[in-house]
Amino acid sequence: MKILATFALAAAAMAALPASAQSFQKPEDAIKYRKSAFTVLAAHFGTLGAMANGRMPYDAQQAARSGDVVAIASTLPWAGFTAGTDKGETRAKPEIWSEQAKFQEGQQRLVADMGRLAAAAKTGNLDNLKTAFQQNSGSCKACHDAYRKD
Amino acid sequence: MKILATFALAAAAMAALPASAQSFQKPEDAIKYRKSAFTVLAAHFGTLGAMANGRMPYDAQQAARSGDVVAIASTLPWAGFTAGTDKGETRAKPEIWSEQAKFQEGQQRLVADMGRLAAAAKTGNLDNLKTAFQQNSGSCKACHDAYRKD
Repeated sequence: MKILATFALAAAAMAALPASAQSFQKPEDAIKYRKSAFTVLAAHFGTLGAMANGRMPYDAQQAARSGDVVAIASTLPWAGFTAGTDKGETRAKPEIWSEQAKFQEGQQRLVADMGRLAAAAKTGNLDNLKTAFQQNSGSCKACHDAYRKD
Repeated sequence: MKILATFALAAAAMAALPASAQSFQKPEDAIKYRKSAFTVLAAHFGTLGAMANGRMPYDAQQAARSGDVVAIASTLPWAGFTAGTDKGETRAKPEIWSEQAKFQEGQQRLVADMGRLAAAAKTGNLDNLKTAFQQNSGSCKACHDAYRKD
């Protein structure tokens, strides 16, 4: 539990970092970076979901590993939403930049959800994982609906 | 140091996992996933390198965070090198699949390098970070030279 707590605190601390901590040469680098972070996040969220829904056999070691990944990956994409990166190969809506406070709230909600999911994934108990999925606040969908083009 | 040790052990344990732990619907999903993991890894490796070389001001908190990212991201791409994924949007050479033992050695070397770099990045001391870069075994380049098309 000590490791879990450490990770959750680390994730919380990361979420509080300014988005400028990572720097990019070109707008397209920022876009590629944030999409990559989302891809990694989605893959491991998908693995945990498949285990929770019985579409994949439960594997405690893989669940713990994917838990670590979603916790850390959920803190990453935001640094890539630099000014002017609503153009190019992206589905990001301009509202991201005109509603910064709301967008940041959404980020924090995701980080909190993924922190809880990671903690459950690391208990080695499938029921805990299922419960964590049921308690998910829907933070992925909320932001996609508001800030991602179809 | 306890957290560092925990992380290094976790990273080592992850590296020992079979590449089949993550599953993909289509070959292009596996390719997209591994490229994304490399992009995230490269971004944070780049951040640490920029601090070590003085191209970016040293920020202990960001260094620690990027250390965590490179440690975990270095363990991820390998699950995406599923059979038959040397075709499509990829620069992966077929030798990856005909030289599995050597390819896996390269993975382990990278994971070890990134573990050491992460440990140094989390000491809060720029000189430690510089030293870790000097001691890097060149694991990125070794694999790119052998297994990535120009």
